[in-house]
Amino acid sequence: MGVGRTTADDARAAEARRASARSARPTLAVVGATGAVGTVLLEILSQRADVWGEIRLVASARSAGRKLTVRGEETEVVALGEEALEGVDVAMFDVPDDISARWAPIAAAKGAVVVDNSAAFRMDPDVPLVVPEVNAHAARVRPRGIVANPNCTTLSMIVAVGALHAEFGLSELVVASYQAVSGAGKAGVDALRAQLTAVAGTELGTQPGDVRRAVGDAMGPFPAPVALNVVPWAGSLMADGWSSEELKVRAEARKILGLPDLRVSATCVRVPVITTHSLSVHARFENEVTVERAHEILANAPGVVLCDSPADGEFPTPADAVGTDPTWVGRVRRSLDDPRALDLFVCGDNLRKGAALNTAQIAESVAAELTAP
Amino acid sequence: MGVGRTTADDARAAEARRASARSARPTLAVVGATGAVGTVLLEILSQRADVWGEIRLVASARSAGRKLTVRGEETEVVALGEEALEGVDVAMFDVPDDISARWAPIAAAKGAVVVDNSAAFRMDPDVPLVVPEVNAHAARVRPRGIVANPNCTTLSMIVAVGALHAEFGLSELVVASYQAVSGAGKAGVDALRAQLTAVAGTELGTQPGDVRRAVGDAMGPFPAPVALNVVPWAGSLMADGWSSEELKVRAEARKILGLPDLRVSATCVRVPVITTHSLSVHARFENEVTVERAHEILANAPGVVLCDSPADGEFPTPADAVGTDPTWVGRVRRSLDDPRALDLFVCGDNLRKGAALNTAQIAESVAAELTAP
Repeated sequence: MGVGRTTADDARAAEARRASARSARPTLAVVGATGAVGTVLLEILSQRADVWGEIRLVASARSAGRKLTVRGEETEVVALGEEALEGVDVAMFDVPDDISARWAPIAAAKGAVVVDNSAAFRMDPDVPLVVPEVNAHAARVRPRGIVANPNCTTLSMIVAVGALHAEFGLSELVVASYQAVSGAGKAGVDALRAQLTAVAGTELGTQPGDVRRAVGDAMGPFPAPVALNVVPWAGSLMADGWSSEELKVRAEARKILGLPDLRVSATCVRVPVITTHSLSVHARFENEVTVERAHEILANAPGVVLCDSPADGEFPTPADAVGTDPTWVGRVRRSLDDPRALDLFVCGDNLRKGAALNTAQIAESVAAELTAP
Repeated sequence: MGVGRTTADDARAAEARRASARSARPTLAVVGATGAVGTVLLEILSQRADVWGEIRLVASARSAGRKLTVRGEETEVVALGEEALEGVDVAMFDVPDDISARWAPIAAAKGAVVVDNSAAFRMDPDVPLVVPEVNAHAARVRPRGIVANPNCTTLSMIVAVGALHAEFGLSELVVASYQAVSGAGKAGVDALRAQLTAVAGTELGTQPGDVRRAVGDAMGPFPAPVALNVVPWAGSLMADGWSSEELKVRAEARKILGLPDLRVSATCVRVPVITTHSLSVHARFENEVTVERAHEILANAPGVVLCDSPADGEFPTPADAVGTDPTWVGRVRRSLDDPRALDLFVCGDNLRKGAALNTAQIAESVAAELTAP
């Protein structure tokens, strides 16, 4: 430190440089900043390369005035409204479908590019559905000024499946999910924790209905106990016995991969895991596959970690993948009865890549585009 | 009660009648009577119509002398050996593969029909693999005097799949399992209970490896923590990345259904459930299917309970199916992209129909045959 120059001077100068640099960068609004995904989003924005000028935190009127930390700075939450969306370049929406349906078009009309994590626009033909590792290009064509972020279950597998599709040509997917309770929000996590406390240290789980009785009214958002149980239901009932979650996997995989006729059967099941969705994937391709080549593809695919050596106890599990960014892939086997089919097991953190991280990645690619010379 | 006739007289007379009736009935040996499946077997033998004369309880020398209750009577366990197998008409074996491989042929040579629940003989072409609801007839042709009982994972789905096959003609199965820890024996149950106690009331399950650290050396027979987790591994490593459990599902389904070329892909996953295996099943048939007809078939199939009304919260879960005899089936959907494929979710108690009950059913059909006029 030189004579006549204080630490306070240094700090002031650094602050001025940061403010000047930021003034040239896009303004980001995080709409739904106080929710489960919003919380992870602020964490991720603090960890990744800082491409943003102002970061405005927006939530319901009820949460306005709360202070949250992002990039190490305390920031006051403002209420969602016309004013909160003025002067925004990119807006991330992590709010219920109906709030997105109403406010995303308003934000877009004010000039923001909206990256929306609800289901409101995913199937709109004028809204691209984007996973940067798979179809980054699609984010550049956005007639409504909106880019949609896929559902967490689709996102937990699609990076790995997309990498294999690029080489082998996907023709069919049969998937069964092992979905974490945080996919149903904080209420889902609270319910599982309460249920686990009710069953731990007991002899429950051997008589019909004994877990159901012990859980009582701590069912939370689930239609059956999830502790010491698995529940073959997620979402709402659609036509012909399908759940909304299962139909999302089919429709979104088709749209992201650009395969409108892809055959997809999904069965979505909730399991007693806090965070990180897993899927057992049976993928059939146009071309013959080998495990060796699939391993090469997955080992080199961005956003994928190959973890496949059962002899050494190496396969992905949610307890190991939780809190990390990539899609973890293992148990890669070629079908013994079909040289064009692979069976694999994938794990992805449903709050990170399954929601907040993918949103951040899309928003950053838009920011790069907006600031490109 | 008449004059001069005491309750003791009545009891003695009843006992004499019972003894006389039993003397004409086949002698049953339960080999492995003290194990997890053996315990359920004694329960089942006490609940079902009594077709047996003597029931001899056999176990390792270590357990000899223990007293267990069957049909309400205390019975002393005798050590497995040549003598224990003399005069036996039917012998149920619930012991490790190597013990079955050695002793089942000895019991058969002494004239017993062996119903074996190990993997030792399941793939022997001279040993029928029997699920009474599906291929009862096969039990009558047993060149080695041995009938094999399938693996619990196969058994948890095959009654439902077999009923559909009989009408539609099965051509392919893609299954993903949600397997209970009791499939790995008492050690599996103890490990999950210890792990649940370690994680209950904590905030674990959100950081990579936090569950693994909390579980420490309470891993039990599993290669990864099973509390707050799912583990895509069951059995031992076979060729090309497949687990022994997955290959059993394929080989056994083919043999039971009499379809040597059936295409089968299975992924076997352990979940934190005490007892009752679940499977997500994608079944493709030779003929077109309808959900309506599938419902009729399943509703009328012996050993199956149809539980399929998601609008009313009705679908099978292990917590509801545990401790019951049938295979529970729900979530029946026709593939949206293939009119010949059905997706369904099944639950079956892996200790009852998955092991002890099926063994008892086979043994009873043999008893009926032996005592037929």
